[in-house]
Amino acid sequence: MNKWVVNSAGASILDPGDRGLAYGDGLFETIAVRNSACRFLDEHLTRLLTGCRQLHIPPPDSVQLVTSIDELIRTECCTNGVIKIIVTRGNGPRGYAFDPTTSEATVAIGVTSAEPYIPSAEGVSVRDCTTTVSRNNALAGIKTLNRLPQVMARAEWQDDHFAEGLMSDDRGNLISGTMSNLFIVRDNEIWTPPVTEAGIAGVMRGKILESAETMNIKVTQRYFSKPDINGACEVFLSNSLIGIWPVKQFEEHSFNVGPVTRLIMAALAKQGVTECLL
Amino acid sequence: MNKWVVNSAGASILDPGDRGLAYGDGLFETIAVRNSACRFLDEHLTRLLTGCRQLHIPPPDSVQLVTSIDELIRTECCTNGVIKIIVTRGNGPRGYAFDPTTSEATVAIGVTSAEPYIPSAEGVSVRDCTTTVSRNNALAGIKTLNRLPQVMARAEWQDDHFAEGLMSDDRGNLISGTMSNLFIVRDNEIWTPPVTEAGIAGVMRGKILESAETMNIKVTQRYFSKPDINGACEVFLSNSLIGIWPVKQFEEHSFNVGPVTRLIMAALAKQGVTECLL
Repeated sequence: MNKWVVNSAGASILDPGDRGLAYGDGLFETIAVRNSACRFLDEHLTRLLTGCRQLHIPPPDSVQLVTSIDELIRTECCTNGVIKIIVTRGNGPRGYAFDPTTSEATVAIGVTSAEPYIPSAEGVSVRDCTTTVSRNNALAGIKTLNRLPQVMARAEWQDDHFAEGLMSDDRGNLISGTMSNLFIVRDNEIWTPPVTEAGIAGVMRGKILESAETMNIKVTQRYFSKPDINGACEVFLSNSLIGIWPVKQFEEHSFNVGPVTRLIMAALAKQGVTECLL
Repeated sequence: MNKWVVNSAGASILDPGDRGLAYGDGLFETIAVRNSACRFLDEHLTRLLTGCRQLHIPPPDSVQLVTSIDELIRTECCTNGVIKIIVTRGNGPRGYAFDPTTSEATVAIGVTSAEPYIPSAEGVSVRDCTTTVSRNNALAGIKTLNRLPQVMARAEWQDDHFAEGLMSDDRGNLISGTMSNLFIVRDNEIWTPPVTEAGIAGVMRGKILESAETMNIKVTQRYFSKPDINGACEVFLSNSLIGIWPVKQFEEHSFNVGPVTRLIMAALAKQGVTECLL
């Protein structure tokens, strides 16, 4: 990030005693900035507050948060880029225990200017990761600061040929990419893994589920494994910054950018996800 | 922590862009200070370096680290207390990817003065946690900054009656306490869970395994579940600060501080773990 603001105080530094550092005791959001505004800000804030509730972290004041974000975008002249919000349980006594009645959250907001991803008309190549995701009902779905499995999975390749790697859980169920949600299309039906045991309920994933429903495309949240990709005719990935990446290659399997992927991308493009304009 | 030193530079602040905060991308050690010296420092540093290797984090210079710790203990006049070392992958570009050839670790050292735990002659009461530990081969054994399951498990009780809570994995295997390693004694044999899929290879756990071997007490690293505690005649917990806590109560089961626990505690007391002097 080019610039950070911590606790709206103009400070841009963090206390090393913060529980966000000590235990990954917090949450984050990564939000696309397009034309100097946050895309799908409400959805990101909703997920952040859901995460705060799940972890018993005092939720930040949404109005204050939006004001700080707007100010940061303005002062840093960010037309296109990324806003990152980190909310932690703040400082506290040594040890895992915390007092939910007295803990005071730390809110750090960072901004970086960056051009949007260029849409990939023919799709991306994706590899398989051996590092598994951690299954944990208490943490599934939300975007916690405990992301070491993703870091280790992403370290499995340096080759730019692969845009993303797919991660499975310890039972062999495909869960997600390291930084993206996963979708396959079989018999004109979309399958995507549930996010109740592992994985993150991505904001773009939510938009895809909504768009599919609007277009009467059936979506099933179900587990599937690598062999199931044999029977898929389309595969795509999503996150808030990339929009959708059609997958053209996963291991020995090749795919075209198929009709369902195109329909979903067109629907997202209409909602401002210009990365989906093919 | 009363006082932090970051990167030996006298600074005591952290950049919010540090990957330790962003992803829990790092490791920590919690070391007992007794009579102004770190107890089992070599063992802690060995585990820290093992963790750095496992996560591909450039290891800190051990000599520099020891010098900084000694200086911090001296300047803060810490006779008894805790040294905490945090090593992270440092700052880096946005996203999970990192370049192992250019990343520069952040090293934060904190100190707090605190009296040693008073030995618990009759043992402690322990409860069961519903929050599970995350199993992940890539992260098991080492002390990473991804500790949210432990935070959430510790939040399951506020009652001081319980000194610790036991955590299982998703298959029902007991793995550890929230902050301690777990041992049960059955037929004069010690069982403790392996740390190859989840859990931490505690420094005090290592000392217990060594001491048991020296005394020809058989130790088996194997999984066991709550019903196996039925057949246990002794149960105890360990960590670097508490030494050993005999367990007197776990749910409906009561235990005495038995002969094997006493032998191990006596062996540790001889090695300077005064918390084990019964």
